[in-house]
Amino acid sequence: MLLEKIENPNDIKKIKKEDYGALAEEIRQFLIEKISVTGGHLGSNLGAVELTMALHLSLDLPDDKVIWDVGHQSYTHKLLTGRKDGFDCLRQFHGMSGFPKRKESKFDAFDTGHSSTSISAGLGLVKARDLKGEKSTIVSVIGDGSLTGGMAYEALNNAAKQETNFIIVLNDNNMSISENVGGVSKYLNNIRTTSGYLDLKEGIYNALKGTPGGDNMVTKIRRAKSSVKQLVIPGMFFEDMGITYLGPIDGHNITAMTKVLREAKRVKGAVLVHVLTQKGKGYGPAERHPARFHGAEPFDIETGIPSHPRTVANYTDIFSTVMCKLGQRDEDIVAITAAMPDGTGLKRFRNMYPDRFFDVGIAEEHAVTFAAGLAAGGLKPIVAVYSSFLQRAYDQILHDVCIQNLPVVFAIDRAGLVGSDGETHQGIFDLTYLSGIPNMHICAPKNKWELSDMLKFAVNFGAPIAVRYPRGTAYAGLRDFRAPIELGRAEWIYREWEIALFAVGSMVRTAEIVRDRLKQEGYSVSLINARFVKPIDEESVLEACRDHRVIVTMEENVKSGGYGEKVLDYMNANGLQNQCINITIPDAYVEHGNVELLKQEIGIDAESIVRRILEESR
Amino acid sequence: MLLEKIENPNDIKKIKKEDYGALAEEIRQFLIEKISVTGGHLGSNLGAVELTMALHLSLDLPDDKVIWDVGHQSYTHKLLTGRKDGFDCLRQFHGMSGFPKRKESKFDAFDTGHSSTSISAGLGLVKARDLKGEKSTIVSVIGDGSLTGGMAYEALNNAAKQETNFIIVLNDNNMSISENVGGVSKYLNNIRTTSGYLDLKEGIYNALKGTPGGDNMVTKIRRAKSSVKQLVIPGMFFEDMGITYLGPIDGHNITAMTKVLREAKRVKGAVLVHVLTQKGKGYGPAERHPARFHGAEPFDIETGIPSHPRTVANYTDIFSTVMCKLGQRDEDIVAITAAMPDGTGLKRFRNMYPDRFFDVGIAEEHAVTFAAGLAAGGLKPIVAVYSSFLQRAYDQILHDVCIQNLPVVFAIDRAGLVGSDGETHQGIFDLTYLSGIPNMHICAPKNKWELSDMLKFAVNFGAPIAVRYPRGTAYAGLRDFRAPIELGRAEWIYREWEIALFAVGSMVRTAEIVRDRLKQEGYSVSLINARFVKPIDEESVLEACRDHRVIVTMEENVKSGGYGEKVLDYMNANGLQNQCINITIPDAYVEHGNVELLKQEIGIDAESIVRRILEESR
Repeated sequence: MLLEKIENPNDIKKIKKEDYGALAEEIRQFLIEKISVTGGHLGSNLGAVELTMALHLSLDLPDDKVIWDVGHQSYTHKLLTGRKDGFDCLRQFHGMSGFPKRKESKFDAFDTGHSSTSISAGLGLVKARDLKGEKSTIVSVIGDGSLTGGMAYEALNNAAKQETNFIIVLNDNNMSISENVGGVSKYLNNIRTTSGYLDLKEGIYNALKGTPGGDNMVTKIRRAKSSVKQLVIPGMFFEDMGITYLGPIDGHNITAMTKVLREAKRVKGAVLVHVLTQKGKGYGPAERHPARFHGAEPFDIETGIPSHPRTVANYTDIFSTVMCKLGQRDEDIVAITAAMPDGTGLKRFRNMYPDRFFDVGIAEEHAVTFAAGLAAGGLKPIVAVYSSFLQRAYDQILHDVCIQNLPVVFAIDRAGLVGSDGETHQGIFDLTYLSGIPNMHICAPKNKWELSDMLKFAVNFGAPIAVRYPRGTAYAGLRDFRAPIELGRAEWIYREWEIALFAVGSMVRTAEIVRDRLKQEGYSVSLINARFVKPIDEESVLEACRDHRVIVTMEENVKSGGYGEKVLDYMNANGLQNQCINITIPDAYVEHGNVELLKQEIGIDAESIVRRILEESR
Repeated sequence: MLLEKIENPNDIKKIKKEDYGALAEEIRQFLIEKISVTGGHLGSNLGAVELTMALHLSLDLPDDKVIWDVGHQSYTHKLLTGRKDGFDCLRQFHGMSGFPKRKESKFDAFDTGHSSTSISAGLGLVKARDLKGEKSTIVSVIGDGSLTGGMAYEALNNAAKQETNFIIVLNDNNMSISENVGGVSKYLNNIRTTSGYLDLKEGIYNALKGTPGGDNMVTKIRRAKSSVKQLVIPGMFFEDMGITYLGPIDGHNITAMTKVLREAKRVKGAVLVHVLTQKGKGYGPAERHPARFHGAEPFDIETGIPSHPRTVANYTDIFSTVMCKLGQRDEDIVAITAAMPDGTGLKRFRNMYPDRFFDVGIAEEHAVTFAAGLAAGGLKPIVAVYSSFLQRAYDQILHDVCIQNLPVVFAIDRAGLVGSDGETHQGIFDLTYLSGIPNMHICAPKNKWELSDMLKFAVNFGAPIAVRYPRGTAYAGLRDFRAPIELGRAEWIYREWEIALFAVGSMVRTAEIVRDRLKQEGYSVSLINARFVKPIDEESVLEACRDHRVIVTMEENVKSGGYGEKVLDYMNANGLQNQCINITIPDAYVEHGNVELLKQEIGIDAESIVRRILEESR
């Protein structure tokens, strides 16, 4: 076992050249075995095994630094930097993160999680190195999917003018999570198939040389630097910006990559190394189903089939079904995703209504303003997006959708705690950042039927509106509570006195348990499904204050700017002196781990809430 | 006077071809005269006179649509669509906006204000047109500066794959507000100087034709489509993405532009028309000082000198001076701007420490993550940015700076009401969107000395921190109040009882007046300068609650998620039952106009506040 020799960082340098292939094979087996048990990002990691090995062989970490864009492809890097044992508790509470973390290892140069940040961060490290008079090599590794994100391009634009060494590795597998899309993808595809270029150039030169004045012409071409490059070099766009282009290289050939990295280190200025890899490389099921093995649940290695197949619908499934129905009823409905047709559940809508479906690539900013344009043109756009990724489009929501009060629907999946992806992916800020935006409306369903009802309400609402729902199983309780959705109206589920629980979305289910427990303790407890976070149902709050001593709000969002503060604010402005207890996620990041564990940890599970109410209620 | 004939939209089509030049001249004179009185965006408008005329001549508005990126160059468009009279009240309260507004005219197809949104919005209108089966021409006009913004590139990427007509006019003046920077600028410069290309291509073809097999070679080149294009066409990057490139064209030649627009309308798919213009064209002072005449105050036409030269320092001046001092003392301090070396006051720092200054182009997202990289590399980066533009980087602050708790300083200028630029530019959301981010700290100075003290505090603070200050004259009162800045500590300016005024930043000055007036009414009033919005000074709130009946908070920010809610929240969580009155901007957009007028309108001027306190205090 070669892998046994890899205990410490840079141990890989002791491996003999002829064993590189065997080591890569062992790493693949290791990753497949471990991830089949814990779950995790498989495809991207299998694709980056040789690339990571080549980087570790060519660099002197941690003085040299690698920044992994998105970061879910950093498993081999973790394995090669003394974290082999971490894989048993990968993505579990207090276990190893699935992403690079500076607090986890000094070999992780910069935390990542969201797409397209690595060139910006890398360039910062490059300029810091220069100003501090240090010598080291900084490498940002970015996928072709991440390259569709605008900030990557902003960073390239800035990198181009720095006259100092900076290596950008473009890990090109022609995929983001699903298939990659758009002009950039086309451009890279052109490059991939340009071997013809070189022949043609030789042909022209040879032909010219034989003609009167031909030698002169060749000289002239050579002198007109740009023109020559356009004849000779793929990746001309990068070259024209001022970034040296090297490639394309076979990303599963370690020798080829170490050679080109050596060359790249000698370039003064930014250099882009274009590496071609295959997502899921070496594991049949992952090669065949790249989207399924992007972020995989535990699976059977033999068959690739999930070990615990899902039997109950999750909210994404419900959304998926409702969208297809809505699409059939109303031809003005169009759907937009930023590179997530699978994750958001829009794939079925795409298959049924391909003309009304838009996958814009990893480009949330564009997605939102594009939707604003569609709405201004008279359509009913629905942007389906994860809560934490929508953060990217905060200004577009505020500036392009809401100032003009355009009827864009935001279907916000993964709102609240998401679990094993951890702090970069928790959807715990959306109520805050959306609430502060004028003209925005926000609702959250208590169960699967209500998600359906709210989506139907939203598409015909005629103004900006967000429907936010969590990751995981769709709640199928409280089926009989299905009063029509009305703007800003809460739903009274149990009406008693003493304590009133106002719960938002996923917290209604928790509130049911809290209520049962409090009743066991002898309290009389009302349960109100808030439904709308903005505007809040002021009338219901007023009503509750009349009959209840204590008002409790419950939401899966940080405190600052959330639902609880809005209720409190209303009570204060109207002189309502009832006690108000706000149950929220504390104003802090929440790490990775099982969602139930996390809830206990931060005090928003039923037990903690009951304890708090019993302690604090006067 | 030709301009007299232009009363209604499309009237320009009645003007004779030979009079185009004279009309352009009249429009220029009109704009110079009007803007010299009202102030406004001069340079960009003078540069776009012929381009706008050409668009109006070539299109059939409002069925056809033009989306103006940023929108400050839309004055000629307003003039040609029946809004000539509006220029007398340009950018004044209830007067004509300086930006396109759908609510102002049906000829304004989409509201703009922030950079780089036009291609996304235009593409949305294009797809809506197609799905509704309509025929019209949609044109997005974007500057080369705006093209450095990432979302423009995201939109190009998406536009490239739509097989339907969409015209993008690249209005290239080699400037953003200041000089344009980076790789894209270099790329466009290459194109500007490529007339040589065409000659070279002809030479090659001619030479080849005369040789044995040469004709064959030419055919082969023609067939190898991409290669031929690389020989023939500048703008290869756009072509490679799948966007037809036409240009470059002289943007002051109306005939040339109408011709190329006719051609562009025939292209199936996205087409980019590259137009070269000069900012400030036709007015000497504006040609010579493009940055100064970007957003101009009223000026003397003869000399170009401001009519009311500023004699008192504004906060930007103070920031500028302090930065130079700090830069001298500490070599780790670096400064970043997104295309605003003039507006943010960083120009002097740039001149003194060019190696430690970074202008990254109109690219706030990159700016922030780049700063995070600089901080991770051991430097002390200061990002100087306007409040409303920082909205673009919300996710980068949350995800790249604050998760890692990196010591990036945000110097947030134009925080609060900005006045004549209106709703797209008001800096009234920053306390909300920054407060909700864990690890972020926020302070706001009461006067010019405190800005200096806070900046000094911030650069050595060692964690993410924002210093927010308003547009306009730096307050020079309360000079004697200069206690050292301590994290989360407020400053008691006057200590009495009954009513306690907690004022944030610019509102301290207002609070002084409010206090005087309340004292005249017989109340005893304390005044506390909040200093920190996050964390709030809980001890001072507790102390105030002990001695005062009423707590009043005052801030120039929307209510949701602001300072007032934080104070109220603390009071509630600690059972403090004092009355709490929160003075904030209502949760709504605020239009353009004189800041004093706006404050009265929304009830945050001293008079309104006094009235409210007298009415509401119990």
